[in-house]
This record gives sequence, C-alpha cells and structure tokens, in this order.
Amino acid sequence: MTDTTTTQSTASVDETLAALTLEEKASLTSGADFWTTKSAPGVPSIMLTDGPHGVRKQRANGDHLGITDSVPATCFPPAVALGSSWDVSLLERVGIALGEESVAENVGVLLGPGINIKRSPLGGRNFEYLSEDPIASGVLGSALVRGLQSQGVGASLKHFAANNQEADRMRVSADIDERPLREIYLRGFQRVVEDEQPWTVMCSYNRLNGVYTSEDPWLLNTVLRDEWGFTGLVVSDWGAVNDRIAGVEAGLDLEMPSSSGRTDAQLVEAVRSGALAESVVDTAARRAIDLAFKAVAGARDDVTYDVDAHHALAREAAGASIVLLKNDGDLLPLATDAAVAVIGELARTPRYQGAGSSLINPTKLDNALDEIRELAASGAGTVTFAAGYTADGGEDAALVADAVAAAAAASVAVVFVGVPAEQESEGFDREHIELPAEQLALLDAVIEANPNTVVVLSNGGVVRLSGFADRVPAIVEGWLLGQAGGGAVADVLYGAVNPSGRLQETIPVRLQDTAAYLDFPGEHGHVRYGEGLFVGYRWFDAREIEVSFPYGHGLSYTTFDYSDVSVTTDAAGLVVRLTLTNTGGRDGAEVVQVYTSLPGSAVVRAPRELKGFTKVALAAGESRAVEVAVRREDLAYFDTRVDQWVVEGGSYTVEVGASSRDIRGTSSVEVSGDAVRVTLDMNSSIGELMAHPVASQFIMQAMASQGEGFTSALMDDPGMFKMMESFPIGRLAGFPGMGIDRDQIGQLLAAANAAS
Amino acid sequence: MTDTTTTQSTASVDETLAALTLEEKASLTSGADFWTTKSAPGVPSIMLTDGPHGVRKQRANGDHLGITDSVPATCFPPAVALGSSWDVSLLERVGIALGEESVAENVGVLLGPGINIKRSPLGGRNFEYLSEDPIASGVLGSALVRGLQSQGVGASLKHFAANNQEADRMRVSADIDERPLREIYLRGFQRVVEDEQPWTVMCSYNRLNGVYTSEDPWLLNTVLRDEWGFTGLVVSDWGAVNDRIAGVEAGLDLEMPSSSGRTDAQLVEAVRSGALAESVVDTAARRAIDLAFKAVAGARDDVTYDVDAHHALAREAAGASIVLLKNDGDLLPLATDAAVAVIGELARTPRYQGAGSSLINPTKLDNALDEIRELAASGAGTVTFAAGYTADGGEDAALVADAVAAAAAASVAVVFVGVPAEQESEGFDREHIELPAEQLALLDAVIEANPNTVVVLSNGGVVRLSGFADRVPAIVEGWLLGQAGGGAVADVLYGAVNPSGRLQETIPVRLQDTAAYLDFPGEHGHVRYGEGLFVGYRWFDAREIEVSFPYGHGLSYTTFDYSDVSVTTDAAGLVVRLTLTNTGGRDGAEVVQVYTSLPGSAVVRAPRELKGFTKVALAAGESRAVEVAVRREDLAYFDTRVDQWVVEGGSYTVEVGASSRDIRGTSSVEVSGDAVRVTLDMNSSIGELMAHPVASQFIMQAMASQGEGFTSALMDDPGMFKMMESFPIGRLAGFPGMGIDRDQIGQLLAAANAAS
Repeated sequence: MTDTTTTQSTASVDETLAALTLEEKASLTSGADFWTTKSAPGVPSIMLTDGPHGVRKQRANGDHLGITDSVPATCFPPAVALGSSWDVSLLERVGIALGEESVAENVGVLLGPGINIKRSPLGGRNFEYLSEDPIASGVLGSALVRGLQSQGVGASLKHFAANNQEADRMRVSADIDERPLREIYLRGFQRVVEDEQPWTVMCSYNRLNGVYTSEDPWLLNTVLRDEWGFTGLVVSDWGAVNDRIAGVEAGLDLEMPSSSGRTDAQLVEAVRSGALAESVVDTAARRAIDLAFKAVAGARDDVTYDVDAHHALAREAAGASIVLLKNDGDLLPLATDAAVAVIGELARTPRYQGAGSSLINPTKLDNALDEIRELAASGAGTVTFAAGYTADGGEDAALVADAVAAAAAASVAVVFVGVPAEQESEGFDREHIELPAEQLALLDAVIEANPNTVVVLSNGGVVRLSGFADRVPAIVEGWLLGQAGGGAVADVLYGAVNPSGRLQETIPVRLQDTAAYLDFPGEHGHVRYGEGLFVGYRWFDAREIEVSFPYGHGLSYTTFDYSDVSVTTDAAGLVVRLTLTNTGGRDGAEVVQVYTSLPGSAVVRAPRELKGFTKVALAAGESRAVEVAVRREDLAYFDTRVDQWVVEGGSYTVEVGASSRDIRGTSSVEVSGDAVRVTLDMNSSIGELMAHPVASQFIMQAMASQGEGFTSALMDDPGMFKMMESFPIGRLAGFPGMGIDRDQIGQLLAAANAAS
Repeated sequence: MTDTTTTQSTASVDETLAALTLEEKASLTSGADFWTTKSAPGVPSIMLTDGPHGVRKQRANGDHLGITDSVPATCFPPAVALGSSWDVSLLERVGIALGEESVAENVGVLLGPGINIKRSPLGGRNFEYLSEDPIASGVLGSALVRGLQSQGVGASLKHFAANNQEADRMRVSADIDERPLREIYLRGFQRVVEDEQPWTVMCSYNRLNGVYTSEDPWLLNTVLRDEWGFTGLVVSDWGAVNDRIAGVEAGLDLEMPSSSGRTDAQLVEAVRSGALAESVVDTAARRAIDLAFKAVAGARDDVTYDVDAHHALAREAAGASIVLLKNDGDLLPLATDAAVAVIGELARTPRYQGAGSSLINPTKLDNALDEIRELAASGAGTVTFAAGYTADGGEDAALVADAVAAAAAASVAVVFVGVPAEQESEGFDREHIELPAEQLALLDAVIEANPNTVVVLSNGGVVRLSGFADRVPAIVEGWLLGQAGGGAVADVLYGAVNPSGRLQETIPVRLQDTAAYLDFPGEHGHVRYGEGLFVGYRWFDAREIEVSFPYGHGLSYTTFDYSDVSVTTDAAGLVVRLTLTNTGGRDGAEVVQVYTSLPGSAVVRAPRELKGFTKVALAAGESRAVEVAVRREDLAYFDTRVDQWVVEGGSYTVEVGASSRDIRGTSSVEVSGDAVRVTLDMNSSIGELMAHPVASQFIMQAMASQGEGFTSALMDDPGMFKMMESFPIGRLAGFPGMGIDRDQIGQLLAAANAAS
C-alpha cells in the first residue's frame, strides 16, 4: 500500500474524483499489474490478493494460477471443510484471523469467500465452496465476510454468478431458468450482500443465460445494486473481461489484472467519441476511489499476527469440520492404549488444500501420523505405520503386504485414503468420484486382515463410498483440512475433539444418481441446468433416491434428543423452538437443522428446504432450549409471473432434524401470504376466470347459454371440465356457435381487473 | 364435399387464385364451421374430420371435445397400440382402411396421425401417440400417412410441435434446447414430411420456446418448409390461433374452426392498411385451394367399405400390438381344455380407446369375455367369470369373494385390470401411474387363491407394475386395442395369435424414476424439458436406472436366435445384416431392433439410440437373412455451433437386439464424418488453437517466450495444462507480462482460418 493517509470521508471521494482527468479516471478501472490497482492524484494503489482460506500474496512474477510462490500464511481449512462445521461464530473467527494476516501483509482486499453452489460432485472447484444449499452458503459466507471486514480488510464475494464448473469456464453459458437462478444460485449471494455489504463482489468468468457476467447489466446493476442494495465495487475475475466498454456500462467497475492500459484507452476513446457517457466512467472510478479509501482506512503498519495462535485456530476449525459418517459399535474414539495400525501415505503426507489460485504457502504443516503418535503416547498404545501406496499411485504389492501385516497385528486399523491432488484443482473438473483403485484394493486387503477398520478420507469433493461403506465399521470424512488438519484428525480419532461436522453435500450411492449427471458440463459453450431447483438433497428427496449419506448427516461420540418442537410467527418470520438434550456421556455439539415445506403449494418445491440452523454445544447430560429463526423472506419463492419474491400463504410444515433424512420433530405453522396480482386478459384460462369472484359469474352465464346438454355434459364429467378449464377465454370466444362475444369478454375482464 | 369437379392441375390453382378478390382469398384461410372449409368461386369446400384411429364425422352441432356423437366408423387400435406392433406394412394397411372410410364419408382430410413423443407417462394424450423414440414415431407415422394418402385422402400430421402434455396446453411454452428439439421432438415430423409429404401439418396449441407454434415463422417456414421441403398446408389445431396476422405471416395457412369471419376481416384490413403484404394472404389461399383441389381429386361418390373386413383388420392390428411382458413357465398360451376363471369387469366391458377428439363411435364392439368363451368352446375347457370390481371403482367385498372362489376353482385365473376411462383423456394429464387400489387388492386376493394368474392390462399410458410383477407368472399388456381388441386378447391368450408387440415406452419401476418427473408439467406458462436428449430409454440407460420392462421388450410363444451380425456402409448409410432363426416350435414374428452409439463422441449422446428396425415373421424352425438399413442422416446430431446436422466421423457401435436391454449381437463400423468448419477468433481457446495445425505453432512459440520455468511448469503438470487449455486466446493476451500481442494474434487467426 502506498501513499496512505488518514480515513477519508465520502465527500472526499467525490472531491477526489472531480479533480481527476478522464484518463486518470479511466486508469482507475483496471489494475496496475497482477495484484494492485493504479494510483491517481489523491488515490492510493491498493493490493488485492487471493484467498479465500489464507493470504496468497506473491512476492513477484504474479500469476493467477498458483504457479509461483507466495509468502507464508496460515492455511486454514478450505471452504469444503469450513462449511461442514456449520459454525457461524467459528467462521467469523477464521475471517478475523484472515483479516489480521491481510493487514499484516498490507493486503486491502482478500479475494473471497467463494460461495458458489456445489451443483455436481465433479465441479473442479467444489473444495473452494461451502455447500449445495443456498441458505447455508449465504449464512456461512456472511460469517467469513463479517470477520474479515471487521479487521478493515475487504472481502470479495465470488464468483458472481453461476460459476459451478471449470470446464470451458471462460466462455460457457450457464443456462438457468429464473426460479433456480434466483432461489438456488443467487440466493446465497443476496444474503451476504444484504447482510454484510462486502467491499467487493467478483464477477465470474462464465456467461449467464448467454451474457458474460462481466458485462451483464441485469446481474451487476439491476439485481446486485438496484434490488439488493450493493454499494461496493464489482471486480472482474482475473481475465474475465470480454468487452470492457460493455462491462463498465453493465456495472463492472474494476478490471483485473492489468490490461497494460489497452482497455483504459478504449474507455477514454469511447467517451471522446460520444459512444460512452463519461458518467459511466465516473461511477466506476468513484467506486474504485471509495474502495481505495476504505482499504487505506483499514491499513495498519507494523502489524504482525500470532502464527501459533492461528495454527491453533486452524486446528480447531479443522476439528469442527470433520464429519464422522459412520461409527458402528462405537469403534471410535480410539483408546490411547489401543494397538493402532496407521495405514496410507496420506497419513504421513497430507493433502490439505486444492490447487489453483487458492493455493496457500503454509506457515507450518502437521501430519496425522505424527499427531496420532503424540496422542497415543499419552497412553500405553502402540502405533505402527504402513504407507500402503505411494503418493503417485500405482499398485505396489510389497506396500500392501506390509499394510496387511500391520493391520493384522493391531487391534484397530486406521486407513487413510483420498483423492489424488492432480484430480482436484481450479481450472478443470473431476472426471469421476472414485477413489484410486490401488487404495480401494489396499482397503479390501486391510478389511480382510482386520475388520476393526476405520477409514479416514482426504478429498475436496465427495467420493463414492458405496463400494465399501457397508464393510467398514467407521468412516471419518476428513475433507481438505488446511495446515493443521493432521492434528485435528488425531483429535477426532482419539476423542480429544468430539466430531461435530455435518455434510454440506450429499454423498450419493453413484455418480449416475446425481442431479446434473447428464448435462454437466455441457458442450459447445452452453450448460443447461436441467435439474432446475432440484440441486443436491432437493433432487435426491424429490426423486426418492437412496443416498450413501444424506445432506446434514454427521455423527457424534454422544447422542442428542430433540423434544418440544414448536413454531410461531413473528414480524421477522418464524421462530422454531425445541429442547435439545445431550443424552450421552460426553460433551458435544449438535447442528440443529430446520427444513420447511408447504404441502399443496401452488408452485414446484423440493420436499424440504433448509431455512435455518444452529450449532449447539452441550455438556454431557445438559439440556437447553434452542431457538432457530427463519426469515420470512427465506420462505419466498420467485414468482416469474410478476418477477418478484412471493411468500405463499398456507400451513407450512417445519421439520427439525439432525440431517435432511433424520427428522426429529415436526410442527406446522400458518403463514400469511403476499398478495400477487395477475391481471386477467384474453389469454386467461376459464379456470382462472372461474377462480375470480367477478369473472366467474360471467362464465357460468355463458355456459348456461350453451344449453342444458352442454352444461351438464361439462359439469357432470370431471374430465371434460378439466379440459375446458385450460381454455383461454379469448380462444373459446372464437369457436363457432359458442355465442360468446369478444367485446363482452373485454368488458368483463376490465370489470374484473378493476374490482380485484 | 360440395361442387366437386374433375382433377385440377397446379396451373389452375394459380388461375383460380388470380380470379379471387382479397376478401375471397382471406375467407379461404379460416373454416366455414367446425369441420369444413369455405368455398369460393372455383374453390370447393372440403371436410376435415378427427382421426387418427378412425373417422369421427359428426352429424351436427360439431365440437372438438368428443362431446357430441359421430357416425359409426371402425375404431382401429389407437396409436399406443399400433406403435407397439412395430409393423410398417400393417400400419400402412390400417392407413388404407382409414382412407377408404374417409372417402366413404366424403372426408377430405383425416386429422392424424399424432406422432408427438411420449415424454412423460403422465401425458394425457399418450394413447394417441406412437412412441418415446423419434425414429420409431417417424417410420410408423410415415406408414399411416402413406396408406391414408394412397386413397386420395389427406393426412394431418400433428401436433406440430412439442405438444407433450395437456396441462395448460393452450398457453404453455415448451422450453427445449436446440439439440433435443431437433433430435427428439422434431425428428419424427421431419421424417414423415420428407418421406410422405402429408397434405397438411397441424400446428399445436402450445408455445415453443416462448412463441405460439401457430405463429412461429421459424417452425412453420424455416424448418418445415425451407429445410424439410414441405409443400402442403398448415392448419391450426382447433382454436390454436392466437394472433391471426402473425400466424399467416408465419406460415399458418388455415385457421380452424370458423372465426365467424372475424379473422378474415382482420387480414383484409391489414392488407388494406399496408400492415400485411397481400402476397402473404395469397400464399395461404393458394395452399387452401391446392388442398381443396387435392381433396376433390380424391373424392369418389357412392363408395362404401366392408365393415366386417375392417373389423377383422382391427382385430389383426390389435393382435399384433399386444405385448407379452412376462410368461414364466410358459403359462401362456392357454390350452382350450383349461379351466379358466376370467376376472375383472374390463373383460366384459372393455376400455378400448381414450376420450377427447379421437373418440370413435365404433361399428361393432367385441369384449374379451365373449371371445374367450368362443375360443374355449373349441376345446373341453370351462370359462367362469367374476367381475371382481365395478366399472365405477370402489371396494366391493362380495365381488372380490366371488372372484377368489372362481380363481380357486380354476386351473388358471386371467385377471383384467386397467386404468379407468376418466383418468385418460385429451385435455388433462394423468396424476399418477397407479392401477386402482381396488383392482390391486383384487389381484392380491386372486394370486393368493391361485398362483397361476395371468394379468391382462388395459391402459393408454404405462402403469406401474413393480407392485406385483414379480408375483404373477404372466402379464399381457393390452393397451387400448380398438373395437376388436376383445377378440385379439382372446387370440393371444389361447395362442391363435403368437404375440409380437414390443414396448414403444419403457415401463419404469416408479414414476419418480422417469426423466420428466420433476419438471412435468411446469408452471406459470412454461415447462422446461430439463432432461434434454435423455427421453425414455435414453434416460434410463444413461443413468443406469433399473426398469420393470425396457423399451423394445416383448415376448413370443416361440424363441429367436440372432447370429452373424455384420455392418457395412453404403451411399445411403449403414446396412446391418444378420441371420434370424425361429428356434421354437411355433410360427412367430420378431422385431429386430438396431441401436447405435459412438464411443468417445465429442458430443453428448445417449448410450444407445434406435436407428432402424424390422418385423420378421418366421415359421417354426425357419432361418432367414435379415437386413436393416440405417440412413446416414439418422446418425447425425444437430450441431449448435454451425446450426446444421452433422455426422460425426468415427467407429460406431451397432447393437442388434430384441429390446434396448436385450442386445443379441454387436458390430462396429467406420463412418466418415461431415466437415464442420468453426472459425477461430479471439474467444477460441488455447486448446482449440493447439488442435489447429497452423495456430498451434504460434501457441508453442508464445509459451516458449514465457521462459523455461513457465513452459515446464505448464507442460509437466497435466492439471495446469488443462487449466490453460480453456483460456480464450484473446483473454490471455490481456494478461500482463505474457508478451502476447493482440494484433499478432489477430494475424495468426486470420492465417489459420485462411489455411483451414
């Protein structure tokens, strides 16, 4: 950061802007180089740096691909793990820590969080995203932004929007219908913007319904600013600008990285030629100045951070993110005096983050094997190790034989398996969700040698478990856990941490069962989101498809009882109340999940939709009253007839569960609906008219005029009636012999519209 | 038909047109009443009448809803049955018979066939359609048109297009992407138009991608006429006109029924005001005159038809359409000396057609019970009957008790179950695919009393069989079989006819498993065809979903062996050869089905697609060489980059099967591809450039200029390489420090495009 001064007022932004030439203003709308903005008279340059789960500040020769090195920073768990914690306050604390490190490195904006929906398990960047659910994404994304920005560092909410795959990501058009776009893919962004006002929003590379998001006025101005009230700056993803003039007009303020002045000159030329209003450049420049001033205001010199404390926080976060998928016969936690065989190279050489722009150079790096040995050392236990396979894959009979021998000699085998690093990265999608064949073969051999086998997974996106899940008693989903993940895994295995993570992504039985299987990743520049609203658990529930582990699932070393579930309404929405009791022998935390549905809804809906959640820590035996608020606006669907959010009135079913398929209590609550006024016209159907108090009278008269036979044929035959119901009134009038006059209908419609 | 003269030449059409006033010409573009066109000087009025499986000529008080009565006509099996025969020559003979009856009734155009795709089992009008496959629909639809038009009667190919549901059918927009629209929903229409030139095509009620098909110039002119070469007349479905001016401009020639002159006047007024070119009205009027002349040329006075012969043909067609789904232990055919309990009201009171505009007033009506008694009378068998349930539904314990007693006393129980008439009609969709609960309860009781139970189904769309299919040894799918269906069922049950029908629609295990389950029938005026290309068996195969009975399935009382499968190419496409042998003890017919796929295809494809079929009758023990031709154009996909059909080159897998999941022989054949020239531009990706012989050299140089480290980081890391591949070259040029000049790239692209 250069030329920092004291906090600037809003007024001074305008004054600063007014003093600039057109060339200077244009220059503020694109980067100086890979990571910094340009300075101008009165305007400092600031640094933006990759996140989201750490500070990736490059020393030199910047790139956006994770190729060249960056300064050491704490590698917190990537979003795939953090999301699984469902812990709002934890994510806020991680955000604070990220802010501290950013300030220490003079970083004004940390590029994150990423809150795109995990549409397909194949999404190459799923490890950077929080959830398959929009409310979970929005609430948890908000926590990260809140924490980060509390330190005077800007967030960059990304990738806006519908960047749910890596294949052809710089061109592909995500073709999404209005309701899924609004209710699934934009809803999380809306939540974070409205609640937290991130300093910046980063547009994505892709097109949305045919238009590059970097030049989509509907997305960047109408929706983001006019509807949601966003006041910050929109920055391009690095290299996302297609047509700079169209972009600035659409609301894309800052192009990154540098265009070496080429696009600045285009803007100047366009203004000079009259093709572009100078006010458009002013608007972008004003936001760039405002951002620079905010960054300057947040900057502090000589700040350092406590590397060890941040490492400890990373370990805590990782521990809270691990999901205990299965634990038959309470095989876990391990006793410290157990004879444990640790198997798998991943235990020694951890995979703890994905590749690409989010690749962090960690301050330290734990591995599970050392941490297990350390915890086991407190008891009389033994820990043996066998690599089982090599990091670069391929069969190795000798390694398998060693592993089998170790397993056979131990009381418990803990087998680390996972997705190889080269399969999960920004820039390309996964091709399958299978674990490596050699790891599965190893696992088979170990199970044979010792049925007391615990599987520990390392993966950024879900893997297929149905090949072995019924043959092992315990499975620990370890995701990518950041630099302290090794310790966190050891903590969970030995019960130093009681697992409390819950799935933010359904684990399917087969890839073929997943919603986007047939149209992911599209072809020839388009990907159709054919599953519509039915993403993730919405799909599996609506189609009643068996899953390996459902959304929201996760076990604990203790048990929880739900009772007294009730729901009331208040001005803000619903208040769901229950009593939660830790009925087991250990302290632990439960994620209470609230799902709603509206039986008999007039619109398409998933069988259940997550609307709220809370993570509750309870001591063994403790009982506590728990409240979960559901916002009224989160009950709304987007009504395409009137182009607005509408809360449908009716009796909502409220399900409270420990997962989407482990509902522990159900209640219902009457909710008043929003008025939706749809004007009647010649294309209104007879059914619609008959539902209208005024228009219905006319219809009955018209039918009677057709004679007794006609009316009774119609009214006595439900099928015939259904057929007639769908006739637009204007069309029926055209039929010969119906005796229905179009002018009369016009008057009727006008009267009905006036009366409603 | 009025004022008939002798055959008119094409020249006289123009002469006749030239002599008409604008008002007279406009008057020819809409009906005189419900079923006739208007006359004009030199132009006779002609009659159009509902089909498709019989002549529904109304005496008076016409309607389009099947409300009022019509003259007696042979009720042939509806399309759901005829399609299941897979018998091209049989359908042509049925078409001829329909033509004879039309001529006898002075009908100039019979409104059919309907060849829309069975997208969902819930489609209310599925009983009027042939198949879930476009090639099957097209080939069988062509046979009907060929037969009908051979008699001088016009067909009306309907409903064009994408009318795959009844819900909100007069307004709903079928929102379909280009490939599924072309390859699934339009392909059958294209086949019939190109092969048979139906005199008329009937536009549908619905909108297609937002535009009413009755006023879609792309559909009615660009595709139908310019691309496919249609020379006939487009008639509206009855009441389908939304905006008459837009319609006539788009190529909708004839509005039906009458608008009482209102829209004729609109056209005149539009021409007078200059809003519409008179030539547009001329074009529509010319086609109306041409149609009238064709109808007149085909008309013959004092023609009658042989009612008994047509009834016999209806029985033959029904017999060929019945699908023997299951026959464990060769329970069927029944011996004529067996003691048979016939159970179910449907055996006595048949359901033989669906409701709505296709409702035929039959010349006679057989029922299965009488026909079974007649066949059994030839042996020493006994036939008892128990109604089991009443036609209007509801539990009736006494009827069930009688049925159980009858079943227990017999050697075989034949239980007739089916979908109630009120659930299947034009005008509304089905709400589920379940058989009535009381019928299922009856069936359970009968199975308990006598495990030798045969189930005979009556249904226009598929029903769920998974509740009992594994508990009964034999299932006969009897569809809706027309007026002679009762005899045909008896023929099959006793082996007088060896069943040879095959499923044209997959029978799913559950409705939830079907492709369109989540977005059928849409809401608020739109239905998204989210499954894309994956309709019917394409969906089940691609997702590897278990089905009750697969597409193409059907058993025989004999067995067939497939051998010597080979494939060659010729100028027309592929020639598939095999030897088919009847290896059983009875004469019978087999439907040989040819499916293709292209492993490693560059575009999305179903695992197998039907491309040809032939029905072969073989005497017991007979062996015959069989050839199935596959047209080269049927191998093409629709390439959205260049907006044309493209045959992709490569080694095609050709599967020959007795069903889509009973493949009996596989071969492969090399097919040369069509050239597809996609111009390179700034948005071409590095991967696309590297695949280009000229452009690739430049890319390698540019990478080299980044230095050794960059190049090796890229080339040594497959993931990094994949990430780079998707970068558009123009975007990369914008990155600082890449040393790539946009002007140079422009020259490179121009050179590459010139060289290719």
